[in-house]
Amino acid sequence: MSPWKAAHPADPVSAIDTPALVLDLDAFERNLQRMVDALKGHPVRLRAHAKSHKCPEIAHRQIALGAVGVCCQKVSEAAMFVDAGIQDVLLTNQVVGATKLLHLAELARRARMGVLVDDPLQVLALAEVALSQKVSIDVYVEVDVGGRRCGVTPGEAAARLARLIADQAPLRFAGLQCYHGPAQHKRTPLEREQAIAQASDAARLTRSLIEADGLQVERITGAGTGTFLLERDSGVFNEIQAGSYIFMDRDYVDNQLGPQDVRFEQALFVRTAVMSRTQPTRAVLDAGLKASSIDSGMPALWQRPELKYVKAADDHGVLEIPADSPLALGDVLMLVPGHCDPTVNLYDELVCIRGDRVEAVWSIAARGALL
Amino acid sequence: MSPWKAAHPADPVSAIDTPALVLDLDAFERNLQRMVDALKGHPVRLRAHAKSHKCPEIAHRQIALGAVGVCCQKVSEAAMFVDAGIQDVLLTNQVVGATKLLHLAELARRARMGVLVDDPLQVLALAEVALSQKVSIDVYVEVDVGGRRCGVTPGEAAARLARLIADQAPLRFAGLQCYHGPAQHKRTPLEREQAIAQASDAARLTRSLIEADGLQVERITGAGTGTFLLERDSGVFNEIQAGSYIFMDRDYVDNQLGPQDVRFEQALFVRTAVMSRTQPTRAVLDAGLKASSIDSGMPALWQRPELKYVKAADDHGVLEIPADSPLALGDVLMLVPGHCDPTVNLYDELVCIRGDRVEAVWSIAARGALL
Repeated sequence: MSPWKAAHPADPVSAIDTPALVLDLDAFERNLQRMVDALKGHPVRLRAHAKSHKCPEIAHRQIALGAVGVCCQKVSEAAMFVDAGIQDVLLTNQVVGATKLLHLAELARRARMGVLVDDPLQVLALAEVALSQKVSIDVYVEVDVGGRRCGVTPGEAAARLARLIADQAPLRFAGLQCYHGPAQHKRTPLEREQAIAQASDAARLTRSLIEADGLQVERITGAGTGTFLLERDSGVFNEIQAGSYIFMDRDYVDNQLGPQDVRFEQALFVRTAVMSRTQPTRAVLDAGLKASSIDSGMPALWQRPELKYVKAADDHGVLEIPADSPLALGDVLMLVPGHCDPTVNLYDELVCIRGDRVEAVWSIAARGALL
Repeated sequence: MSPWKAAHPADPVSAIDTPALVLDLDAFERNLQRMVDALKGHPVRLRAHAKSHKCPEIAHRQIALGAVGVCCQKVSEAAMFVDAGIQDVLLTNQVVGATKLLHLAELARRARMGVLVDDPLQVLALAEVALSQKVSIDVYVEVDVGGRRCGVTPGEAAARLARLIADQAPLRFAGLQCYHGPAQHKRTPLEREQAIAQASDAARLTRSLIEADGLQVERITGAGTGTFLLERDSGVFNEIQAGSYIFMDRDYVDNQLGPQDVRFEQALFVRTAVMSRTQPTRAVLDAGLKASSIDSGMPALWQRPELKYVKAADDHGVLEIPADSPLALGDVLMLVPGHCDPTVNLYDELVCIRGDRVEAVWSIAARGALL
């Protein structure tokens, strides 16, 4: 990492070095509140996905506003949040391998830990480590409700796994993970409605089979920023795993919103400067692949629609600009990352601004926690 | 970062946790030697590009084998190498902004520092900070020889900049940066030859104009792994900036090699495990976007051509596999990253293996050094 910091608390915003990951605290706090308002009075709770921010300071703020805890993707990521005092973590992933399972069991001594399974072998391995380490672990069956990634087919296969979990003394069958990732990026409200209606049907069917076997399905969890109102109103989901709503990213701009959809604001930016300006229609920024993830497309330029980020190299971002653009060497721009989560993973710190001042610098403590 | 490590020295390779970035030391050392052999007896020297590895342990090995020093892309990246004892660093980038320039000048007290310019304003700002900090800085004119990114047009514009540098007392006009990045990924030997022939002509023309102005052009530097033999034999380049040759990446496999081209070996891998295996033709790995950069395409599966990595999410990699594949939960695979440099930037440590043992774990000290 850099031996010096991009900014310090109380610095003017104009003094932030580039490239830096910047959070607009006013927009961020409005986003936090919009989620609270959207879930108020509904029989669903928020378990915020920490893979978006990897930042304990943010998790604490989400929990202070009512979130039950966080989701993480990796055992080592979860460890960073447990170390920071978070008491309830759901690993929204399968955990395979003796080393990882042992770390998970150790975390379960210090916090309520949940994990997903989609294979009987995972259940038996979890039971073994929980027994040997004398801990209890919440286990959820992951159902493939349309994401076509992990998870068992809805119905009987899920019900058999639920029974297997319930039969293992140190494990607690906690419910179903029914996350439909691709639905969030379908562009029209109708497409998203259809996808989540199918996911909800799959969840309902699976729940009824498990209940017919005499087990209670306490929790049906899933949903993300792009669809969470649909899961909220489904009558079957009772926990929401939204993560990106705090930051938003460029990709969501391409979603057509329905009249009821919540308007979250862009709160996360990559601050960057022009470092080369030799041709009339080209400028080169100091933020490339290592500063903004391009897996969901190139970043946009905040409030500068005339500028187009066309190419990213490791440490260079190439802009196409109008021939009469006054853009000059050293000028500062704000990028809107195509995809926040992997962009956050590129930084050690989040520079939090309010108005024209740096208010805080937060550690992205779980950055690079891959294990 | 993870609170525990993927591996420790003397561990068996089978015990490395996943995902982990793994270096095959035997292949790496053969690659180092192949570069030494390829440059032996030629009037060119190697200045290895450290943006590929970000790892002082590797820089020291390159220098022990004759490299004059390293290239870096960022001031903070350079600082990590100077801190580790590297005495000669060329920043292959423009440096814009008072904070960055001050850090650069501080480094120039402790090591020989070079930097690129493509604008008179950069020259004047460098002169000012060098004067105030009482240091000398080597300054190279970057010439756009075909990369269409930074750099001035070959010829008069470059010659004017060289004169401006030479006229600033604390700066030393050191030569020309003539790097043609895109040439390295042209697929046929003929296309690469044509691109580097043009780049060499542009360098030669520019040199002659600068010499006609009474200045010496000590160094013409550039080239990368995909084309360096062409620059070596150009009669105009006298320094090679190759970086990827130590690791190689999947994208280079698509280059058709000519009969003289050096065969570097794949030495860098992402070790990953199967964490979900619910469908006959699908497996899900624990290595996604945060484990292998996909900017140059999806990773390949090492020595498993029947497996296809088709989709990356943050922490999931989806494989398409033959219906009769015996691939099972927990099976370990080795990914060949599409692009090594940004992949290395995702990890804090490099697990170095020899045969079936972990020999060392090296710090990727300049990971995330963006400033």
